[in-house]
Amino acid sequence: MSETAIRVTVWHENIHDREDPRVQKIYPNGMHQAMADGIRENLGDAVQVRTATLEQPQHGLTEEVLANTDVLTWWGHAGHQLVADEVVDRVCQRVRTGMGLIVLHSGHLSKPFTRLMGTSCCLHWREADDREVVWTVNPGHPIARGIPQAFIIPQQEMYGEYFDIPQPDELVFISSFSGGEVFRGGCCFTRGQGRIFYFSPGHETYPVYHDRNVRRVISNAVLWANNVARQPYTTTECPKSPRGWFENL
Amino acid sequence: MSETAIRVTVWHENIHDREDPRVQKIYPNGMHQAMADGIRENLGDAVQVRTATLEQPQHGLTEEVLANTDVLTWWGHAGHQLVADEVVDRVCQRVRTGMGLIVLHSGHLSKPFTRLMGTSCCLHWREADDREVVWTVNPGHPIARGIPQAFIIPQQEMYGEYFDIPQPDELVFISSFSGGEVFRGGCCFTRGQGRIFYFSPGHETYPVYHDRNVRRVISNAVLWANNVARQPYTTTECPKSPRGWFENL
Amino acid sequence: MSETAIRVTVWHENIHDREDPRVQKIYPNGMHQAMADGIRENLGDAVQVRTATLEQPQHGLTEEVLANTDVLTWWGHAGHQLVADEVVDRVCQRVRTGMGLIVLHSGHLSKPFTRLMGTSCCLHWREADDREVVWTVNPGHPIARGIPQAFIIPQQEMYGEYFDIPQPDELVFISSFSGGEVFRGGCCFTRGQGRIFYFSPGHETYPVYHDRNVRRVISNAVLWANNVARQPYTTTECPKSPRGWFENL
Amino acid sequence: MSETAIRVTVWHENIHDREDPRVQKIYPNGMHQAMADGIRENLGDAVQVRTATLEQPQHGLTEEVLANTDVLTWWGHAGHQLVADEVVDRVCQRVRTGMGLIVLHSGHLSKPFTRLMGTSCCLHWREADDREVVWTVNPGHPIARGIPQAFIIPQQEMYGEYFDIPQPDELVFISSFSGGEVFRGGCCFTRGQGRIFYFSPGHETYPVYHDRNVRRVISNAVLWANNVARQPYTTTECPKSPRGWFENL
Repeated sequence: MSETAIRVTVWHENIHDREDPRVQKIYPNGMHQAMADGIRENLGDAVQVRTATLEQPQHGLTEEVLANTDVLTWWGHAGHQLVADEVVDRVCQRVRTGMGLIVLHSGHLSKPFTRLMGTSCCLHWREADDREVVWTVNPGHPIARGIPQAFIIPQQEMYGEYFDIPQPDELVFISSFSGGEVFRGGCCFTRGQGRIFYFSPGHETYPVYHDRNVRRVISNAVLWANNVARQPYTTTECPKSPRGWFENL
Repeated sequence: MSETAIRVTVWHENIHDREDPRVQKIYPNGMHQAMADGIRENLGDAVQVRTATLEQPQHGLTEEVLANTDVLTWWGHAGHQLVADEVVDRVCQRVRTGMGLIVLHSGHLSKPFTRLMGTSCCLHWREADDREVVWTVNPGHPIARGIPQAFIIPQQEMYGEYFDIPQPDELVFISSFSGGEVFRGGCCFTRGQGRIFYFSPGHETYPVYHDRNVRRVISNAVLWANNVARQPYTTTECPKSPRGWFENL
Repeated sequence: MSETAIRVTVWHENIHDREDPRVQKIYPNGMHQAMADGIRENLGDAVQVRTATLEQPQHGLTEEVLANTDVLTWWGHAGHQLVADEVVDRVCQRVRTGMGLIVLHSGHLSKPFTRLMGTSCCLHWREADDREVVWTVNPGHPIARGIPQAFIIPQQEMYGEYFDIPQPDELVFISSFSGGEVFRGGCCFTRGQGRIFYFSPGHETYPVYHDRNVRRVISNAVLWANNVARQPYTTTECPKSPRGWFENL
Repeated sequence: MSETAIRVTVWHENIHDREDPRVQKIYPNGMHQAMADGIRENLGDAVQVRTATLEQPQHGLTEEVLANTDVLTWWGHAGHQLVADEVVDRVCQRVRTGMGLIVLHSGHLSKPFTRLMGTSCCLHWREADDREVVWTVNPGHPIARGIPQAFIIPQQEMYGEYFDIPQPDELVFISSFSGGEVFRGGCCFTRGQGRIFYFSPGHETYPVYHDRNVRRVISNAVLWANNVARQPYTTTECPKSPRGWFENL
């Protein structure tokens, strides 16, 4: 393992995987393992990946774990309300001080994402085996590395506009669905020193996290969200700053 | 006519309308008249609308016309290269000093738009009677006033991503097409003091400019692009500015 | 009063005004009255302005008041923590469904603003009679109407970077201070259908809200933040949307 | 030299350096050598740096040189009009297909930059030994890596707002000057697949390119502007795209 490896924590609520045979069949070791595998497969020694799940003490997201996480990925759905506010505060605060955050699919309604966005993050949805086409609209963006102009996910839950998010700083992917809907499915945001990427593909009843392009996008996002600046100053308080305070930084 | 009416000039190359019977049937008075009618219909006394066309001297865009235009709309296709560079320079310069510009459909490749964008403005296209669905992705934006969450244009030329434009300052509409393509079809930009809106619907062989929603969007865009700030200072030169130059503005 | 007048509610915590003789001298009727006067002075019949204050029941921000408010302005400082979470939730929800919000000066740390931003909104500050120069960096923006390239506030509290906000959708003003600091003091955001403008000038011990340019900026911001789109749909839930749901909107 | 080294070409008009003894004293080998040294010093084996100057055939920017350049830096001032349009077209086209571009100081008025921006890029200026303070306003951005919250350039040419550029995709640095001016001096743009960074410090009569922080910013910008996506498709034409064209990319 490289000393400069990016420390990734794949967080998963791990509910459907234990309760729904359809999901178990696709993800026998849980969706988090598929996500972790995808990141390792693409980034190798450049990352050090572990997982954490809802049922663990403090949901596996202790102060220590977060302090040693450079990029956190988040998948939740049935258990959004089971995530303790104390942990949510800790995650949001860590994002603002520089931890990258990759929010996947139904994580759009998770507590950390909605708090960091300041909006409802609501959208239209339908489970009807729509074909999704993911279009690259920012081909020079590092998250588009190795991704074709368009790629197809044969069957997906439809996620459609209006998606109630702040306008993203950068929009990288837009999806279409067989039914005619569109969706801003690949969006970059910054909150404090933390870089956030939302990526919509990923319903639990389809093998989306086995898809080569989806895995590549998430891996690219890990590289993008990793905060190389790592500024030593924080912004958790408002310093009273005498004239000339900045002269010897 | 109100004294404070917004002075709109609808510019049209007016080529297909004179040469193609299919276009003549849909737009017997030319597409520019349909556009002008749509704006008058929605905005009434709030606007004063005239038209100008390619075949006129200086393409109808003399210094005087431009000086007395608050918002210019632009439709071109077959005649992009017939537009004199001198007129293009004048249009771009007038935009930078505060004239609004609404670029329609195939105007994406027009000289003024590509020069103001700094990119190729290329895209994918197909004439195959695709159904277009226009989705509102910024419902609080003034250009979305009176526009439903989605509206349908039953037959349209497909315009698809990658659309080579700079990231818009605000993205208001995204379209999907029957073939599965998506397109950032309603985009806001600013260049200097000029506000620019690109709106993609509008192929000449379909009655798009008779569509109620399309007319409403263009009319809303006229209101948005009209520069109420009308700052007296220009930015056509770099002033050498002594210490304190700004103390008595 | 015009039937289409924009209904403005000027909210103020009204603490310093009642406790600090320095503030009383500058604002004998309270800062909220100066703000309300400034808006009326500039917009006349185009607005209908009322005030609401912290000490009123529900802080003067009942469901009914908010339902009948198009644009809310917010000034708070000493009493941020005294604002009831229930009222904050109501304000944020009303913003997302289309109420404009203008946050002034020390309101940067208010509950509504920090929740809508998703960041700490911290900054550097100093009370030392710095001269502030406010620079227009988006002269074609409607909020810059009638505002010179730069204007001076002779004495002000210094607010300096790093200001921990999400990157604004549009940046209209940047301030400098005698001490050498800079500040993104005029910032536009959108959250849901609500348009938000943060404007930094306004310390309570200086007569900033009597300043002609400051009053003009706030008045321009009222016009900008007023949601003319007024879309009937809300985004407080995620609708399950069958195929073709959008065909007859 | 690493096989994956980023290939940087430092372009310089090299006029003041040969004509002005003040400049020669500060930059005995030319400003381009100081810039190249700064990049090598920070990035070592990660880059392969060469220089090119105005007086060379084709200004040193042949098809071959550009094809083998990942990131181009540009400094010009007295010689903007001496740069051949043919070379400018080539540079702009190469940027759109993925070459990074870093435009320095007076390069704001260069042909490549103004064409890629679509605006005048004018600004206010003064040569009066102002102190410049460069403030980081996006501390999580990779270009801010290792840069303090603020750093001081003791003497600089003043560059002040209004700076007539399109709103940057990301704003990283804002400068203040002793005279009270502010300037958006660190701005990110994208044009096509090319990433562009404008950085304002750098007047020829001051030792700015010997400054540790300035060198670090330029080096960080090289890493940021290097297009890792390197998409094989270009956007120099508008492909007619039959239904299903994207199904086997």
